[in-house]
Amino acid sequence: MKAARIVKPKEPLQIEDLPVPRPRGKQVLVRVLASGVCHSDLHLWEGGYAGPRDMFMRVEDRGVRFPLTPGHEVAGIVEEVGDEVVNTGKGEKVLVYPWIGDGACPACTVGEENLCDRPRSLGIFQDGGYAEYILVPSERYLIKIDGQEPEQVASLACSGLTAYTALKNSSIRAQEFLVIVGAGGLGLIGVQIARAIAGSTIAVIDLDDKRLEEARRLGADHIINSSRSDPVKEVKDLTNGLGADAVIDFVNSSKTVAKDLDMLRKRGRLVLVGLFGGSTELNLALMPLRAYRIIGSYTGKYADLVELVALARRGMIRSVIGKRFRLEEVNDALTQLKEGKIMGRAVLNP
Amino acid sequence: MKAARIVKPKEPLQIEDLPVPRPRGKQVLVRVLASGVCHSDLHLWEGGYAGPRDMFMRVEDRGVRFPLTPGHEVAGIVEEVGDEVVNTGKGEKVLVYPWIGDGACPACTVGEENLCDRPRSLGIFQDGGYAEYILVPSERYLIKIDGQEPEQVASLACSGLTAYTALKNSSIRAQEFLVIVGAGGLGLIGVQIARAIAGSTIAVIDLDDKRLEEARRLGADHIINSSRSDPVKEVKDLTNGLGADAVIDFVNSSKTVAKDLDMLRKRGRLVLVGLFGGSTELNLALMPLRAYRIIGSYTGKYADLVELVALARRGMIRSVIGKRFRLEEVNDALTQLKEGKIMGRAVLNP
Amino acid sequence: MKAARIVKPKEPLQIEDLPVPRPRGKQVLVRVLASGVCHSDLHLWEGGYAGPRDMFMRVEDRGVRFPLTPGHEVAGIVEEVGDEVVNTGKGEKVLVYPWIGDGACPACTVGEENLCDRPRSLGIFQDGGYAEYILVPSERYLIKIDGQEPEQVASLACSGLTAYTALKNSSIRAQEFLVIVGAGGLGLIGVQIARAIAGSTIAVIDLDDKRLEEARRLGADHIINSSRSDPVKEVKDLTNGLGADAVIDFVNSSKTVAKDLDMLRKRGRLVLVGLFGGSTELNLALMPLRAYRIIGSYTGKYADLVELVALARRGMIRSVIGKRFRLEEVNDALTQLKEGKIMGRAVLNP
Amino acid sequence: MKAARIVKPKEPLQIEDLPVPRPRGKQVLVRVLASGVCHSDLHLWEGGYAGPRDMFMRVEDRGVRFPLTPGHEVAGIVEEVGDEVVNTGKGEKVLVYPWIGDGACPACTVGEENLCDRPRSLGIFQDGGYAEYILVPSERYLIKIDGQEPEQVASLACSGLTAYTALKNSSIRAQEFLVIVGAGGLGLIGVQIARAIAGSTIAVIDLDDKRLEEARRLGADHIINSSRSDPVKEVKDLTNGLGADAVIDFVNSSKTVAKDLDMLRKRGRLVLVGLFGGSTELNLALMPLRAYRIIGSYTGKYADLVELVALARRGMIRSVIGKRFRLEEVNDALTQLKEGKIMGRAVLNP
Repeated sequence: MKAARIVKPKEPLQIEDLPVPRPRGKQVLVRVLASGVCHSDLHLWEGGYAGPRDMFMRVEDRGVRFPLTPGHEVAGIVEEVGDEVVNTGKGEKVLVYPWIGDGACPACTVGEENLCDRPRSLGIFQDGGYAEYILVPSERYLIKIDGQEPEQVASLACSGLTAYTALKNSSIRAQEFLVIVGAGGLGLIGVQIARAIAGSTIAVIDLDDKRLEEARRLGADHIINSSRSDPVKEVKDLTNGLGADAVIDFVNSSKTVAKDLDMLRKRGRLVLVGLFGGSTELNLALMPLRAYRIIGSYTGKYADLVELVALARRGMIRSVIGKRFRLEEVNDALTQLKEGKIMGRAVLNP
Repeated sequence: MKAARIVKPKEPLQIEDLPVPRPRGKQVLVRVLASGVCHSDLHLWEGGYAGPRDMFMRVEDRGVRFPLTPGHEVAGIVEEVGDEVVNTGKGEKVLVYPWIGDGACPACTVGEENLCDRPRSLGIFQDGGYAEYILVPSERYLIKIDGQEPEQVASLACSGLTAYTALKNSSIRAQEFLVIVGAGGLGLIGVQIARAIAGSTIAVIDLDDKRLEEARRLGADHIINSSRSDPVKEVKDLTNGLGADAVIDFVNSSKTVAKDLDMLRKRGRLVLVGLFGGSTELNLALMPLRAYRIIGSYTGKYADLVELVALARRGMIRSVIGKRFRLEEVNDALTQLKEGKIMGRAVLNP
Repeated sequence: MKAARIVKPKEPLQIEDLPVPRPRGKQVLVRVLASGVCHSDLHLWEGGYAGPRDMFMRVEDRGVRFPLTPGHEVAGIVEEVGDEVVNTGKGEKVLVYPWIGDGACPACTVGEENLCDRPRSLGIFQDGGYAEYILVPSERYLIKIDGQEPEQVASLACSGLTAYTALKNSSIRAQEFLVIVGAGGLGLIGVQIARAIAGSTIAVIDLDDKRLEEARRLGADHIINSSRSDPVKEVKDLTNGLGADAVIDFVNSSKTVAKDLDMLRKRGRLVLVGLFGGSTELNLALMPLRAYRIIGSYTGKYADLVELVALARRGMIRSVIGKRFRLEEVNDALTQLKEGKIMGRAVLNP
Repeated sequence: MKAARIVKPKEPLQIEDLPVPRPRGKQVLVRVLASGVCHSDLHLWEGGYAGPRDMFMRVEDRGVRFPLTPGHEVAGIVEEVGDEVVNTGKGEKVLVYPWIGDGACPACTVGEENLCDRPRSLGIFQDGGYAEYILVPSERYLIKIDGQEPEQVASLACSGLTAYTALKNSSIRAQEFLVIVGAGGLGLIGVQIARAIAGSTIAVIDLDDKRLEEARRLGADHIINSSRSDPVKEVKDLTNGLGADAVIDFVNSSKTVAKDLDMLRKRGRLVLVGLFGGSTELNLALMPLRAYRIIGSYTGKYADLVELVALARRGMIRSVIGKRFRLEEVNDALTQLKEGKIMGRAVLNP
């Protein structure tokens, strides 16, 4: 089978011809129909991301090994199943939950495999979906998507789930004011989820007018271009000087977080999602005095993906497919994503 | 009646002779039997506390007005009630909930008056319990303490409640490892509450051996003197290199918080309680990658104080009374507290 | 002012001319623009409802006193305020939260005044909104509705809030199957709320095809006329034989509840809302073996009404106004409601 | 290996000599050190339990197949592991979590395998611990108990966990009044857990003075012998006529539940745990009017057993070992349990 692999960070991905894996036990082999291209794939490709004081944090120090087939947003059709598989079979359309853990750590014990101490995520620590086939370690990581479009559903596994979990972590309520920072793939799906499940007032901040217009179309009440106006002042003006009840930062850079903290209302929640990196100075006494919460939010758990797929089935959420690429165009896809040329989600169709 | 008042920050408190207030409507006049002396009273006395980059944050900018009678840990006996009071009467022993709000803001709506947008806390924004009598704005802020010692119960209203809420905010479970930073009044009651309600393993960090020994006596499993050994290394050694599930920092200074973050386990919660102030640099990418939560925790809500008083009635928590002072010795009490000479709680007996 | 009052149960309400109350302290006088007519007003009018074995449970035994001005779904305009009112003033459009408690019992302490030990609800234990003016005991029971239609909002205070709380009590999730029993005023708003906040699959059961069609129009996925087919069988057929994850019974009669229990899935929740009355035989061993939960749900708390009004402002929920009546037509309104002639909500416009 | 098996309901168990199973994949073979004898083993032995109107509910209709080796409270030492086991090895002391599910149903997805749609519990649907060895399907069902006594820990897996989950389901708080019905094995551990984690006031009801005295020794504040006095009246007298905030009924018979409902306070929770069976008549209108909750509680989830074992390690809970038996004495053990001759827990030591 063909697979697009990172052989070495920063070098072009190579299309390799690998043997098709055979599923054993509870394993399932899935033929890939759609595989989302995600910003975190860029981190894999670049070999890391920025930490504080321009320190470079290498993904290999987190356990990533090359060569690697990336791809953690995968929808497809069951091709073959191991002999212990009981709940699915050849021909079933499925979405793959990629945030697999060891099943034994405290996080796994409460169903948060995405936060496992020894993560084995597909497309990161094991081969993923930039390929014709993906081997899923157990049927328990599949979600049936009969009647749904694979392309639509694929990106729920990462960008959708990440936005959904961030929204839940923000504890936002209908009568509150929510700020979403960043109108990229995550931010745009975040706007829809906020509309679908929270009902809160939504303001979106970005530097790009086109993205902001898309955010408005999807349900944002207010859009703020932070290259032209001070987002802190704007949010304060929109909230009688009180500030936002919650800010979800899908960028999470030194620049954005400093402003996030300034626009937060007493009892406000700041959810940090993006992996842009860098650092910010935290005023310590303000944390208790204003009862702030800063919450790091990373992907999401299986049970929440089940919920999210059900919401999408209802038509309450729609992924914004930016562009489609063939497997051979993978370097092109990643480059365009890096250069910010794709609005919404890029998808590979192997 | 006699009242010890801050007339001007940094100057000695003065004993004034004020008219005894008359309760109207739902108000209740309480004769003070015990009034705790709290570290935050020092902030009032000094007129503020340290912010980032040595900036001084003035309490008057937060709405405090002088002259002021401090004192927010008050237990006493009902002396007289307004004409609309129905649930209490002269002679009843009560604890006063001091964290009063305006009753109308979003925090008050969900019973978190301690986090009100327009706080009216007793002993901070209104006259408190460093006096022979205190006027409580409504009977709804009283908790009956029949059969309990006023001195014991008084400090539950602030140091006890603050520690209790911090524990709840830490979401600590029996199988987890909890670090408490600071073995002062708050830390020592925090150890007891952790023992009483969580059952987790507890390590306490401080610079003072005597305080640490007291922490051990009250139930800490491990004590760490951070002037002699590296607390990060110690905590890592005690947790198979994983780190603490939760850290509650009752100091909350630049120095302690930097270490707190370093000793935190994946999915770890850092609860910031102290008002020492200063700032720390936050590594942004680590927040989502390790799913950290930083939670500012300020005093607590009425419903939790009711719960805490019930736990104290069971004997599950005992305040450590450090020293007793007469009202006239108030400056002495504050000075000794400032100089760290009081282990446990100082109490005024007007 | 004119007020429509129940002078004696079962006798026609009388239009009396009463003095306009004057607000004192925190009280607020509201000029009534819309006052919903609710099924529970019928219980007041009839003086009680059916208990087990045809026992009649009298409302006077629960503390109701006649003559009484009913009406607990009240929207209007502030006419005059007491001298301690700070957050509202003459001319402001407001919805009245009617489920007032004594402020001191355990329920009130956690913000559930609707479940107070000594309830003082407007229109039940105090005079309500079947009148030109209503005296609200404190500004804290008002919610601003600027820009919203009073008629639309009025019924949120009871039927909307009751349905909303029932939905919350059902803990229903997007991937689950919800059954709503009864397509009356409550059921129809319940369907909308389920669509707006849960995203679950919804089946509605009723005896009346017209109501069922309305339920379908508002978002029900399946409608079941239980006079023609067995709802237990239908629900089982729709759920692969497993049964419903949750059933919300807005009727709550011997007949409906027996079937509710039979159609419940393992781990299912049965929320009982209606006051039709009667009794059912409960199979005790099945409760633990199938981990059932039966939850009595009565109106809702103030904080949830704030949330619900915000959802309505978003257009996520619309009350179905069945008919409008003048105050003088009150007996007509109650009679038509009793005879099941009103689909949706009847509203008085005094 | 020797195993004590139910070959046919109501006939004496037989000691059979079976081949020692060999663990494959993630399976683990555990040498049994202690195996608790549980009331629900009696239901297996009798082949069922009483339903409503004296209907007999057969366990075979729930999927149980004979011959069966009972025993679901099992502590022991790892003897041999399958080739995919990574977190444990020969010689490790472990407690077995027996409430195993299929891993794929909605309950399993959220970690509630004990409530699985297709349960495979050890000692019920698969062979359990009345034997020298037990084959555990995956290492993920083991909890390390190094330093703890196997006999002490064994009963945590069922009676301890059931009581713990029931306590959690009761949502009891420190300031509330809890009634525990039945001072058998479950009730006595329930009293300890309530003391350890809730701090509430506890009243225990039973028919046997000796059991009641034991309950008092373990921490009950009030004991009520319902053969001599009316428990409803007693509870009302102890609560100013209000009733209990929560009742946990470890018997769950027609007789006890009727009284439970009568002694419940407004907003009260009734947790039904026992499998005595029968039925009760439920007054429907009271459910919403008094906001009652009736909660069926069945064993507990893995994550909670981890927590409970940690509490036991702290010495906060101690199982009451009634009597010890050799495997050959199994019929004797079951008979004595049935006749109510064992106070606390009976344990087999194979």
